[in-house]
Amino acid sequence: MKFLRYGDIGSEKPGVLDADGGIRDLSGVVDDLSGDVLGALPDVDPTTLPLVEGSPRIGAPVGHVGKFLCIGLNYSDHAAEAGMDLPKEPILFMKATSAIVGPNDPVYLPRGSQKGDWEVELGVVIGKTAKYVSEAEALDHVAGYCIANDVSERAFQTERGGQWTKGKSCDGFGPIGPWLVTPDEVKDPQNLDLSLNLNGARMQTGNTQSMVFSVAHIIAYLSQMMTLHPGDVIATGTPPGVGMGMKPPVYLKAGDVMDLEIEGLGHQRQEVFAD
Amino acid sequence: MKFLRYGDIGSEKPGVLDADGGIRDLSGVVDDLSGDVLGALPDVDPTTLPLVEGSPRIGAPVGHVGKFLCIGLNYSDHAAEAGMDLPKEPILFMKATSAIVGPNDPVYLPRGSQKGDWEVELGVVIGKTAKYVSEAEALDHVAGYCIANDVSERAFQTERGGQWTKGKSCDGFGPIGPWLVTPDEVKDPQNLDLSLNLNGARMQTGNTQSMVFSVAHIIAYLSQMMTLHPGDVIATGTPPGVGMGMKPPVYLKAGDVMDLEIEGLGHQRQEVFAD
Repeated sequence: MKFLRYGDIGSEKPGVLDADGGIRDLSGVVDDLSGDVLGALPDVDPTTLPLVEGSPRIGAPVGHVGKFLCIGLNYSDHAAEAGMDLPKEPILFMKATSAIVGPNDPVYLPRGSQKGDWEVELGVVIGKTAKYVSEAEALDHVAGYCIANDVSERAFQTERGGQWTKGKSCDGFGPIGPWLVTPDEVKDPQNLDLSLNLNGARMQTGNTQSMVFSVAHIIAYLSQMMTLHPGDVIATGTPPGVGMGMKPPVYLKAGDVMDLEIEGLGHQRQEVFAD
Repeated sequence: MKFLRYGDIGSEKPGVLDADGGIRDLSGVVDDLSGDVLGALPDVDPTTLPLVEGSPRIGAPVGHVGKFLCIGLNYSDHAAEAGMDLPKEPILFMKATSAIVGPNDPVYLPRGSQKGDWEVELGVVIGKTAKYVSEAEALDHVAGYCIANDVSERAFQTERGGQWTKGKSCDGFGPIGPWLVTPDEVKDPQNLDLSLNLNGARMQTGNTQSMVFSVAHIIAYLSQMMTLHPGDVIATGTPPGVGMGMKPPVYLKAGDVMDLEIEGLGHQRQEVFAD
């Protein structure tokens, strides 16, 4: 099933997609798509739920995200393109959860930004608490999958001292969604095409087959270091084609439009604005 | 005033300290010490509130922390000790909010941990939304101050690939409290003694005068990159004396006891266990 959250920022309601692409109101069944609800998502027939009229804004498909974990340099073809060795262990960083927005919300470049960049990624939403889990049992803890755009400011990330956090956590730098797609609809998370277009021109093309560390490996690995809670989101790395890697580099500017797709997970479109 | 949260993990109630050190039940006045409550903390006479009997566990003094931001290498004497240049801009990293515990809760070393370490730090709790604020107006956005122990696993932090996140985000690696002390009781956040003892022996001694970047500077700086929301916590760096810097290094082991103090902000004590 494809779950989603719709409505104005901060007051999203839970919904589910019907077979015709209509949004059905799930708020009579669950309060929100967050926390423990994610470990036991309702198995309802969407046609029994009220159809939502009009075209409401789509929000992030999970609320109250506890942590937004990200894996760096996790595609072998991206590492090759960048001329970097494959990491021996998953490279972990975090984005601020305050960066999370809906899949089609505007992306604002913060004041002083000159090196905004894009990263289409497979997002994994945790449904059940995971601590010291094995790779074999890791995927049992997944509520579903979504698209994530790990929007980045490369100067903030690498030229302002220290860690990557500054360039990853700006407001709006974490569009996720449109849907939380349950694992039964994602036959193999390690065989999904993903792509990103900038102003209609293809920039990123990849398949999750090229991941250095699989989704299961990442979950098991992270769970050795910290408890993963329902509602945590993991962005699992990006394929080749980010702006920073182009010769010469290409960076986001006001008016740009990013289109992201992952097989079976839908489509995101963000327009870029200067803050 | 000194606000706090008391009770079992996950079901803490808000409280306030009276002049005799007794805990008064604030749950009839506010639901929790989180979110917008932090921007308008109640001005009540503690003696008018019910006295809490017994000695309940003390929790973290703020609930629903959105982001746990940390500044690295922010004490000039610590940088000198480490033989490192002073940073030109604040070095930012994040701890997972799932690492947050009460000030006297046990600290568990995760499986495989061999290089656990301590860092006493001045914690700043945001009370009002801050975006693009100036240094002059920055402190108007502070709800209060607290002690923070930025517990770290140095091998996870620096020997496992990539960013510091892995060594900073383990469960229980973020004791904060005991109190959220309002700014009127902290005459000058840039003149506070802070210290940490390990098993009764002094390890860290410092004063916030030695900060490279002041609290006001840090808030203004971070607010250029991301919105700071009520309930966000900033740990502002640690003075000299961490285990990693000793010759030879000293790391935490099961049975160790850490005692932390900051002038006017109370005392923390954590016992270390192996997970």
